[in-house]
Amino acid sequence: MEEALPKSARRYVGVDIGGTNIRAGVVDSTGHIQGEARRPSLADAGMRAAIARAVDAAAEAIENAGYTVKDISAVGLGVAGALRSREGICIFSPNFADSRGVQILGPFREAFGLPAVMLNDVAVQTLGEHRFGAGRGCSNMVMITIGTGIGGGAIIDGELRIGSTEGFAEVGHMTILPDGPFCTCGNRGCWEALCGRDAIVRRAIGKIQQGNKTIITDMVDFRLASVTPALIAHAAEQGDELAVEVLEETGYYLGIGIANLIQLYNPEILVIGGGIAQAGRWLFEPILRTVRARAHMVPAATCRLVPSQLGDDAGVIGAAALAAREAARLEASRPPTTASADPER
Amino acid sequence: MEEALPKSARRYVGVDIGGTNIRAGVVDSTGHIQGEARRPSLADAGMRAAIARAVDAAAEAIENAGYTVKDISAVGLGVAGALRSREGICIFSPNFADSRGVQILGPFREAFGLPAVMLNDVAVQTLGEHRFGAGRGCSNMVMITIGTGIGGGAIIDGELRIGSTEGFAEVGHMTILPDGPFCTCGNRGCWEALCGRDAIVRRAIGKIQQGNKTIITDMVDFRLASVTPALIAHAAEQGDELAVEVLEETGYYLGIGIANLIQLYNPEILVIGGGIAQAGRWLFEPILRTVRARAHMVPAATCRLVPSQLGDDAGVIGAAALAAREAARLEASRPPTTASADPER
Repeated sequence: MEEALPKSARRYVGVDIGGTNIRAGVVDSTGHIQGEARRPSLADAGMRAAIARAVDAAAEAIENAGYTVKDISAVGLGVAGALRSREGICIFSPNFADSRGVQILGPFREAFGLPAVMLNDVAVQTLGEHRFGAGRGCSNMVMITIGTGIGGGAIIDGELRIGSTEGFAEVGHMTILPDGPFCTCGNRGCWEALCGRDAIVRRAIGKIQQGNKTIITDMVDFRLASVTPALIAHAAEQGDELAVEVLEETGYYLGIGIANLIQLYNPEILVIGGGIAQAGRWLFEPILRTVRARAHMVPAATCRLVPSQLGDDAGVIGAAALAAREAARLEASRPPTTASADPER
Repeated sequence: MEEALPKSARRYVGVDIGGTNIRAGVVDSTGHIQGEARRPSLADAGMRAAIARAVDAAAEAIENAGYTVKDISAVGLGVAGALRSREGICIFSPNFADSRGVQILGPFREAFGLPAVMLNDVAVQTLGEHRFGAGRGCSNMVMITIGTGIGGGAIIDGELRIGSTEGFAEVGHMTILPDGPFCTCGNRGCWEALCGRDAIVRRAIGKIQQGNKTIITDMVDFRLASVTPALIAHAAEQGDELAVEVLEETGYYLGIGIANLIQLYNPEILVIGGGIAQAGRWLFEPILRTVRARAHMVPAATCRLVPSQLGDDAGVIGAAALAAREAARLEASRPPTTASADPER
């Protein structure tokens, strides 16, 4: 029997399969990326082809890190979409064409002959931040990622929870404003319909079209389709009132949702990630003001709101942490070898 | 050393300390109440005196069941209020005068010489419904109780979760309508400010004062202060339009909150308890309609909404289940006795 590497020297492949980019990395047991590779998702070309590219990226990452498959203990994946992760299947991903029923883990197991596991992308990021980022050492942590949509994940009593059908902490579709804007899910007033990327841009364009003065129009040379949250944040930095108002309103609704999560999960820490989170103080100040006004109980007083520490790496590092968890589980369930058996028997 | 009873023959005392009534019961290991006793809470006279009466009730329940303290393995308590349960202390109970810092477990330990444990009332009811009621066999369950306020509790991956400061599933203070009515907690639009007992009554009185016709005015002989949710439900049963409208609106807001809980906790089952839940189909139909409209994802399709099975007994039975859990924990942490030790050693 081959001898296992000491735990501290083990390496895992983490793969982050998003709607735009695929990233693979070799991650050591301390959470450091030792080599990586990227591919475009080309989501319109279907999920099966994307998975094949993800396998390629994983192989290239192993090579770039200077290793061979023998040096890797397991592969972990974070996938944007609803999954039946034990079966390795995608139920549905809004990003990819032809995603229903696609087998995701199979190609990785075949290509590398390694254990392979997956969970949805935000669950994996939550695991990454808990194991190696902002949530290290916490028993109770919530993570949200604010981008195109709003995703969520939660560590409760030390473990990542996924719920009865892998839908735990589907925070983006919590109703925040019953008569609010329609959401892609069919409901109205969902958190992500109020605070996701499109909602923020729409809020700005609405105010511009009402004739309010702003430097944003000059910044995009009057092409309103080019307005982005980053650009709005940039305008706010320069004191643009309209931009400040947009972030103020967005922060208000973000704060309501965050107050709700604090009261529902009672975490020690709430980690905020995703691109929109980079809008800085113009967004965080109204968030904090609203949380303070809305959440009066002990849970709010004891919960810290912090930005993600791993940033864009949370997906790859989290996926590797998932792989490490699986490797440990497999090891624990293996019958003891001669070397580790009781010498007395 | 005294020999422990076989687990199947053990009995526990469960005590439910609410704002109006104190109930104590001796409960066997199959969840049946074998004898009980009650006392008034007399909340205005302070919590310390109420705890003394609760100890009396527990002693009387043991006697009524035909046992002595020797026959009991442990005592469990469910207490309406915010607790530091490990220390046995009440942080604050809105029901009781002088509740801050009151030691609750001490008097029980002194009186009976038994292990005593406690948690807040809704957590305990959730444990009861999970162990012996509507949630038997479920790994993921949410319970809400709709009464004066709205309380919540959750079983996640088979265990009752209490969060980092015993505030898990503080569902009543989730914001449902940002500009809604003010809540006793200082926030506005909280779930319980929209759907608790007072909100329902206020909704009815508002419509009556607008001059809408209703049989409710006759039912209370024009004393609007006598309107209750039960009376509104009764009027709805008789086809009273105003009463139906009141329950319809209440069910709409209940449905929004329930849809949120389903998406945040992804439970197999959501158990609805508390007095208001008895309003029947006039409330459940709008709840179900709203949940179906608001929660489009897999979690909603796989979650069953069911009424509490233990009803008013959930508190006593749940408190006994908590005692049983503590007894099992103590047993597991005890060093092995001679009889159970390895004969080889």
